[in-house]
Amino acid sequence: MTPALAFSAEEYAARLAKTRSAMAQRGVETLLVADPSNMAWLTGYDGWSFYVPQMVIVPRDGAPLWWGRTQDKPGAAQTTWLDPDNLFDWPEEHVQHPDHHPVDSLASLLRDHGWTTHLGVEMDNYYYSAASHRILETAFGRDALVDATGLVNWQRAVKSEAEIALMRKAGQLTAHMHAVLRDGFRAGVPKNVLVAEVQAAGIAGLPGLAGDYPAIAPIAPSGTEASASHITWNDRPLTPGEATYFEISGCHRRYHCPASRSLFLGDPPADIRRAETAILTAIEDTLAAARPGATCEEIAACVYDSFARAGYVKGNRTGYPVGLSYPPDWGERTMSLRPGDSTVLQDNMTFHLMPGLWTPDWGLAITETFVVTPTGGQPLADIPRELVVKPA
Amino acid sequence: MTPALAFSAEEYAARLAKTRSAMAQRGVETLLVADPSNMAWLTGYDGWSFYVPQMVIVPRDGAPLWWGRTQDKPGAAQTTWLDPDNLFDWPEEHVQHPDHHPVDSLASLLRDHGWTTHLGVEMDNYYYSAASHRILETAFGRDALVDATGLVNWQRAVKSEAEIALMRKAGQLTAHMHAVLRDGFRAGVPKNVLVAEVQAAGIAGLPGLAGDYPAIAPIAPSGTEASASHITWNDRPLTPGEATYFEISGCHRRYHCPASRSLFLGDPPADIRRAETAILTAIEDTLAAARPGATCEEIAACVYDSFARAGYVKGNRTGYPVGLSYPPDWGERTMSLRPGDSTVLQDNMTFHLMPGLWTPDWGLAITETFVVTPTGGQPLADIPRELVVKPA
Repeated sequence: MTPALAFSAEEYAARLAKTRSAMAQRGVETLLVADPSNMAWLTGYDGWSFYVPQMVIVPRDGAPLWWGRTQDKPGAAQTTWLDPDNLFDWPEEHVQHPDHHPVDSLASLLRDHGWTTHLGVEMDNYYYSAASHRILETAFGRDALVDATGLVNWQRAVKSEAEIALMRKAGQLTAHMHAVLRDGFRAGVPKNVLVAEVQAAGIAGLPGLAGDYPAIAPIAPSGTEASASHITWNDRPLTPGEATYFEISGCHRRYHCPASRSLFLGDPPADIRRAETAILTAIEDTLAAARPGATCEEIAACVYDSFARAGYVKGNRTGYPVGLSYPPDWGERTMSLRPGDSTVLQDNMTFHLMPGLWTPDWGLAITETFVVTPTGGQPLADIPRELVVKPA
Repeated sequence: MTPALAFSAEEYAARLAKTRSAMAQRGVETLLVADPSNMAWLTGYDGWSFYVPQMVIVPRDGAPLWWGRTQDKPGAAQTTWLDPDNLFDWPEEHVQHPDHHPVDSLASLLRDHGWTTHLGVEMDNYYYSAASHRILETAFGRDALVDATGLVNWQRAVKSEAEIALMRKAGQLTAHMHAVLRDGFRAGVPKNVLVAEVQAAGIAGLPGLAGDYPAIAPIAPSGTEASASHITWNDRPLTPGEATYFEISGCHRRYHCPASRSLFLGDPPADIRRAETAILTAIEDTLAAARPGATCEEIAACVYDSFARAGYVKGNRTGYPVGLSYPPDWGERTMSLRPGDSTVLQDNMTFHLMPGLWTPDWGLAITETFVVTPTGGQPLADIPRELVVKPA
């Protein structure tokens, strides 16, 4: 089986070169990449195998290595551009074993290659545990390890044209999901039934465009539930007088295009309408400002200012970069749209702009994923933006 | 809003007491629980917020504390039995920030309470990073931290009757998903379209029984793809002459009941039929043996023996405990059904029995989730077990 890679050999080579340049700057000689999004970006590796230790190892020279569970090695052969000789596995019998840890075998592999110092590790990542780190510290000494959290993530910030194309496809799926949502949003419908329809639309997709699992499950709280920002769903019927927001994303070949919309059954009260107006203005102003050369905090100010004019205070960040991802987060965990982040925007950076408002009584979220262009931020999904109002 | 808890106050109290007893045995005075499954089991906490640091803190005496992001505190108030005074948050502006780490605020909170030594941490967990550990080491000294990986997980091994009831409900959802799968499995159907239908069935659920998101996305490889064990899906049409297996689970109030079935379009070749027979025998023998007092390795031998008689070698474990879970794994990561694991089975332990076979040309998986009873293992879902054969 020949891997059906999403990108050209040249693009993977360019990614590797960027990564190595960043390694040199941080004094990393050998990079141990445990984040599945980073692994996929570098090699194409795909599979729900990240619940056990696995890595892509990037030496200073030569081809990267894939290292993982024996049972997943065929998956690496199927999905990556790596030579089969560069796929290494740890003993299957060590999976989730009280007396063995797979990272012991990683230490041996590194030693066999003479890679025992200036080892970059992603210290703040879901898929690199404190236990894994201790094993490497014990094997090579604390000074042999360099914190390389986010090193690869930062290389992913500016998207290639091929990546933007995949994000636009994800955006078509997101728009399709929202169309199904608007259609199915009716009083009395149990929330889980509506979520099932919306999620199925994203995965069944559109002609010639298949959906993948998104890195975050649908977040869809209603009424006072929505004062909490990460409640998923339950079986309560949709109720007149309540605002519901759906934060969802289509996913195509692991690329995302999240977008939230808020929906209301009946006549929305004045404070929700005021918040809606503030959010819509915030989005328009931010998109207009999101040109290369502007900073994260500058464009974020468009959101905070619009909210302040409407009498609302937003105490949290208002966006983050998105693209390729695996659970549990579709954000890239690098820059943020918030005060104090002076990162300069570049062409083809992509953000999920998140001007959500949460009060003790309701939450409202209307959000857009956009790409930075010379003429401003361009949304990657085409979805009516205003509050969806349906009969009570 | 009053939390709609899934269990009685007495049950939560019993869980806490078991946990404290285990803490005392391991020399832990204050337990820091970062695993969202453990957090939910102890307090009811629910929400897709585990992509940022959050914990339940269990002191030796007194009520546990919830600690998390400001934005998620309302979610803790909505979903846990904890007193609002015991919910603590870290500054919202520190979320995914290059110069701040939320665990700094955790260190302050612990210091404020005088909890600075014999701190139990889940060192080998997705949601406790090497960076978090280093911060606590720096704050309290390396000797103040005790590895408490799996401490709470082990307390979850024997299920209460209320938990078994939820797992049976999850099993009804799993059976419903498999019925939709059998019905929709036809030559030419793109895999993603079928996955969408199956997943929607699990979430829309059955009358009075709503589905939640499972902790693992559907794993559904076909033909030679299935030589890799954790490939999810693509848009390739179902093809005559190929075996496909679906590893899926219904989920109800975060409880799971995974079950895999294999399907074939056309006449299955003799080697696949031989594997099917070996698997079905393995399941029957294992269920018969799974009584209190038997060990994990003893019942696992039923699988290895059946495979050996059929001329197949299975090189990996053949099951693990399941129950309450969050992504990325629905296993409990404690015991395993494999050689060398002498853990003694007890009434109401629950396992996903996984007698899968992977060859270079195909993979076959027929699996059952069962509960240990005095008369043997009892499947928690009612699904026809044999290979599903449909016309080519």
